[in-house]
Amino acid sequence: MQQKMEVGILGATGMVGQHFVKFLQGHGWFDLKWLGASDRSAGKKYRDAMHWHLAGVTPEAVADLVVEECKPGNAPRLLFSAMDASVATEIEQAFARAGHVVVSNSKNHRMERDVPLLVPEINPDHLKLVPGQQRHRGWKGQIVTNPNCSTVVLTMSLAPLKQFGITKVIATTLQAISGAGYPGVASMDIQANVIPFIGGEEEKMQQETQKILGTFRGDHIEPLAAKVSAHCNRVPVVDGHTVTVSVELAAKPSEADLRHAIETCRGVPQEKGLPSAPSRPVIYMTEANRPQPRKDAERERGMAAFIGRLRPCPVLDWKFVALGHNTVRGAAGAAVLNAELMYSEGMLD
Amino acid sequence: MQQKMEVGILGATGMVGQHFVKFLQGHGWFDLKWLGASDRSAGKKYRDAMHWHLAGVTPEAVADLVVEECKPGNAPRLLFSAMDASVATEIEQAFARAGHVVVSNSKNHRMERDVPLLVPEINPDHLKLVPGQQRHRGWKGQIVTNPNCSTVVLTMSLAPLKQFGITKVIATTLQAISGAGYPGVASMDIQANVIPFIGGEEEKMQQETQKILGTFRGDHIEPLAAKVSAHCNRVPVVDGHTVTVSVELAAKPSEADLRHAIETCRGVPQEKGLPSAPSRPVIYMTEANRPQPRKDAERERGMAAFIGRLRPCPVLDWKFVALGHNTVRGAAGAAVLNAELMYSEGMLD
Amino acid sequence: MQQKMEVGILGATGMVGQHFVKFLQGHGWFDLKWLGASDRSAGKKYRDAMHWHLAGVTPEAVADLVVEECKPGNAPRLLFSAMDASVATEIEQAFARAGHVVVSNSKNHRMERDVPLLVPEINPDHLKLVPGQQRHRGWKGQIVTNPNCSTVVLTMSLAPLKQFGITKVIATTLQAISGAGYPGVASMDIQANVIPFIGGEEEKMQQETQKILGTFRGDHIEPLAAKVSAHCNRVPVVDGHTVTVSVELAAKPSEADLRHAIETCRGVPQEKGLPSAPSRPVIYMTEANRPQPRKDAERERGMAAFIGRLRPCPVLDWKFVALGHNTVRGAAGAAVLNAELMYSEGMLD
Amino acid sequence: MQQKMEVGILGATGMVGQHFVKFLQGHGWFDLKWLGASDRSAGKKYRDAMHWHLAGVTPEAVADLVVEECKPGNAPRLLFSAMDASVATEIEQAFARAGHVVVSNSKNHRMERDVPLLVPEINPDHLKLVPGQQRHRGWKGQIVTNPNCSTVVLTMSLAPLKQFGITKVIATTLQAISGAGYPGVASMDIQANVIPFIGGEEEKMQQETQKILGTFRGDHIEPLAAKVSAHCNRVPVVDGHTVTVSVELAAKPSEADLRHAIETCRGVPQEKGLPSAPSRPVIYMTEANRPQPRKDAERERGMAAFIGRLRPCPVLDWKFVALGHNTVRGAAGAAVLNAELMYSEGMLD
Repeated sequence: MQQKMEVGILGATGMVGQHFVKFLQGHGWFDLKWLGASDRSAGKKYRDAMHWHLAGVTPEAVADLVVEECKPGNAPRLLFSAMDASVATEIEQAFARAGHVVVSNSKNHRMERDVPLLVPEINPDHLKLVPGQQRHRGWKGQIVTNPNCSTVVLTMSLAPLKQFGITKVIATTLQAISGAGYPGVASMDIQANVIPFIGGEEEKMQQETQKILGTFRGDHIEPLAAKVSAHCNRVPVVDGHTVTVSVELAAKPSEADLRHAIETCRGVPQEKGLPSAPSRPVIYMTEANRPQPRKDAERERGMAAFIGRLRPCPVLDWKFVALGHNTVRGAAGAAVLNAELMYSEGMLD
Repeated sequence: MQQKMEVGILGATGMVGQHFVKFLQGHGWFDLKWLGASDRSAGKKYRDAMHWHLAGVTPEAVADLVVEECKPGNAPRLLFSAMDASVATEIEQAFARAGHVVVSNSKNHRMERDVPLLVPEINPDHLKLVPGQQRHRGWKGQIVTNPNCSTVVLTMSLAPLKQFGITKVIATTLQAISGAGYPGVASMDIQANVIPFIGGEEEKMQQETQKILGTFRGDHIEPLAAKVSAHCNRVPVVDGHTVTVSVELAAKPSEADLRHAIETCRGVPQEKGLPSAPSRPVIYMTEANRPQPRKDAERERGMAAFIGRLRPCPVLDWKFVALGHNTVRGAAGAAVLNAELMYSEGMLD
Repeated sequence: MQQKMEVGILGATGMVGQHFVKFLQGHGWFDLKWLGASDRSAGKKYRDAMHWHLAGVTPEAVADLVVEECKPGNAPRLLFSAMDASVATEIEQAFARAGHVVVSNSKNHRMERDVPLLVPEINPDHLKLVPGQQRHRGWKGQIVTNPNCSTVVLTMSLAPLKQFGITKVIATTLQAISGAGYPGVASMDIQANVIPFIGGEEEKMQQETQKILGTFRGDHIEPLAAKVSAHCNRVPVVDGHTVTVSVELAAKPSEADLRHAIETCRGVPQEKGLPSAPSRPVIYMTEANRPQPRKDAERERGMAAFIGRLRPCPVLDWKFVALGHNTVRGAAGAAVLNAELMYSEGMLD
Repeated sequence: MQQKMEVGILGATGMVGQHFVKFLQGHGWFDLKWLGASDRSAGKKYRDAMHWHLAGVTPEAVADLVVEECKPGNAPRLLFSAMDASVATEIEQAFARAGHVVVSNSKNHRMERDVPLLVPEINPDHLKLVPGQQRHRGWKGQIVTNPNCSTVVLTMSLAPLKQFGITKVIATTLQAISGAGYPGVASMDIQANVIPFIGGEEEKMQQETQKILGTFRGDHIEPLAAKVSAHCNRVPVVDGHTVTVSVELAAKPSEADLRHAIETCRGVPQEKGLPSAPSRPVIYMTEANRPQPRKDAERERGMAAFIGRLRPCPVLDWKFVALGHNTVRGAAGAAVLNAELMYSEGMLD
């Protein structure tokens, strides 16, 4: 391949920023050359501007980059945003206005009418919102988002079922502590415990799922007309969100229909062979007690969703368990895959 | 009070047996005087016949009792059964035939047509099955059972809602490791992990719930005509099963109706002031993130169910989270409360 | 007993303050009537001034007390201090100057020459420092302290061995997360992990141990002339600090000598039957794999130290494992026992 | 490189066997072609003969191999032994007698006078015991062993200090649950707990350390004349043994001497560039709270030991914390590195 494209991170010092740093190491297309953070960090070397919270040590090549302020100027055109929600709206818009492509993991713009909430295997056509976004807002750049970490797992597990007409979904999550960032959840709260509440999470799962599985209608996405109910819980797991799902399907498929749909599910990332694409977006496990977060989340470099225990549901039609890696496919990896899709479609030329 | 009633334990050396030993310490009505176990243990002092797996040390008064074989003979009339399912059927029936009152925590007889599956606050009238059981089987004694540990939590949380006509229930459990006995779950399987499967548990929750909430019809229980779907998971928590519940209610009550029903819920154990009865069977917590197993399961000596987060469900009508102590209210404490109810009704005279 | 003595807590809203609130519930001699905290909390009801972090719910009788500023005035004479180290020096001294008896769990005054660092079973005579403290500082009141949570476990386990001439001690701790307060240790740092460092802890264990086991010399304590080396680690345990100890003893006692010394160890709290005294200060467990924090720390209401695995050490003379409850015997319970000792000696008349 | 050497595993179905299967995937020199296990497994495909306990799924290439009985015959010359101690003595000897090179992780032959207990960076010359072993026992083959998982960590951390004359060592371990195999430690025993005892572990650490750091004397190893004392504990960590170490050194080196010795430490595996050799055998971390098992054990593919917190010890001379991956460098990886050393020395020609 020709020369790599230079990329940057907005909010590089936080935990999501660190996940971007880690995920982009050795990337085939993108070369991490720019790190943006708050005034407090600007001017320092990355190694001095943050405390590395992930396993291992800060990648050497990045550790010596000097952190800059999050202001458009000398930043590369493509920026991954790991901004905190309290400041992401303004900063991401400033960069988009200045011509940058902002591929964001922040929640701020996800539900905006003209912003794609993208899962490349599910709704690559939602990128068609971008021209309208640019026209309407007068931006040369753009903002594209990926879903909340628990929404990704749910929607990827529902993707192969969409063809059967999803009408009702009840999902209960068992979410890993890494989803709360750093310092995140106090050990005194979660050690050998369950916290049956994550602020704002259920609303996100319910709304984002409808948008992701929805239909592009020229200048907006028509949400999927399915009822979605989420129960969100934190459990003492490091990485990997588990979700139990009951679903009602209009077409009343058989178990064989469903298994076939799951096993043959492929998307644009697989067809195009995007660098971060998993071999298959959804992998069915036949063992009675799988998938499990500690044993399965890291497979396929954390980019696949895993499904198991498909069986009839006495209330809705079918039930199963789903799993995905929340800080990879649910955050940094999701955004990078979004950028790869855009790159492969010529949107970053 | 007059002299205490002597009681014994069938299967005293296993983990459930140990929970009975612990729970019966200092009981106001019952005096633990007899321990039955397998041939391998018979003839040994209790302290030498088992390895104590619970917190603290074996109660002194019990440690020196000599373990006997599980054969009717010199055992007391009232026996708590903690027998393993592989042998409970035969042994419990032998004792019932010989005139003993077997109050069992084992699953074997729970779904038998003529055996009460009792939660004293919910279905004390199911004890009316006993005369028929004795007549039909030609027993002088009897067998009475308590539910599976996750079923107890679900049914107690549904009890106040029964008046509104329960038609559909979807429940996901996050179950503690103590529910699997000893050695139970390998630490390599559950440490920082979730196991989304517990053998036979979902079927038990579904069927037992319908029976417990069902109606006495002379010689059998007519199950509640509600659809019940369970997703059962093991999480790294020591004690306390958490359950997320979505429920459909025919009468379409308001939130105020439901809160009032929960807060005024009382049962026979509370009215009669049974020794092991919690002050209220169901306690509603208003904090946004409660109940939690490590912080709440031990309250009310482990005998209450806790509910929180009552809110509308976009798919069914309402959703909430419930919690109960699986080895107390879900096992030993449940059986002892059953015996207290029977004692207070004169069935042990 | 006659009327209870009114007591208060300095720093009542923090986690240690909450432990005092919990431990003082139903105390036979002391009646908790006053709560002091920062300006931010003053004027609010206790229930509104803090978030309760301990198991269960805030004791009702205390929840409605109105929190006051930490200034002498209408506070009771006896005050337990749970002040943060950043402010404890000044505030504790202000109260002592104003005539209050400050029984402190804070580290600030522990190593002051004229302040007792008290473990009632070990060095009750160190209270003789108080008259000099009052004279020298011109105080009508006084400050008395208890040790760091890991030091208590070590010193109580060494107490019975002091008679044999302790010359060298090497100790490694495995400390519970509750020792770090709230929010304390981030779950991302300690989940399924070990943190081999606790700031300042090793120095405290080394110095405090020498003072506690030292000798009263009129106006100061002559430290025990033993070399003490500590390795301090945080482990994912909720309550209970485990300590492995190797010790050199001048008198070269036999194992029987040591076991006898441990088993006959009693102190003033046991002799006087102080309300919070454990039946024995040090309890030896003969099981090969005990004591263990989750199974043993709560025994004796958390007030005893447990020892196990006494065996020869190939480098020093003997080695063993010790355990104690860090938030009870290592904090709130320690201070209350100190106050009970002072009360029983007439120092609070 | 030319054709790979075919290798096999004795005891392939157990947990250590699975670690060998995993570690040998994609190995540059060795090609796993033969799996031996008990009669019960023989004749079945590997995938059907065991339940895979490690993260992810069974490597495809191995899953379809047919398991054979552990009898010499058509097995490859080089065999890695993961045999259970109850049967390892006889089986390993049978294979060595029949001409096989048995590179064993089992404890059975480690302390035999004529068997190398090898850590390639420390004592590669101990391989010189092999000719005597063959002569004395009349074997064409041979047995070579690697140390216990906690011993490896301790000895690798001591290796750079050996030049200063190690005279006394006191070590306390905080060992991961994976060290106990499967099912290993019951979750009810270790969840949020510490078990201060691991059967036989302290003796192994004490004796093996002396042998590994000892001197080849023609037909045996003269043990290092240092006193070694170990305290072994199990903690709720998945992988990675942490060890706190206090050490006395005859030469009284300065901190700079020690740091230099650690940082310049290299061994034969590094010089020869053996495929599984870490870049450096011992890596010093300067962060105040490192190394940590969950964050560091996997670095260098689990093959390095990590040291941190070097500081003076008030009792012996220096103290520090060490860490290593118990199932990689402490088991499968250690044996494979041993075989690589033997291969590179022409012993497998």
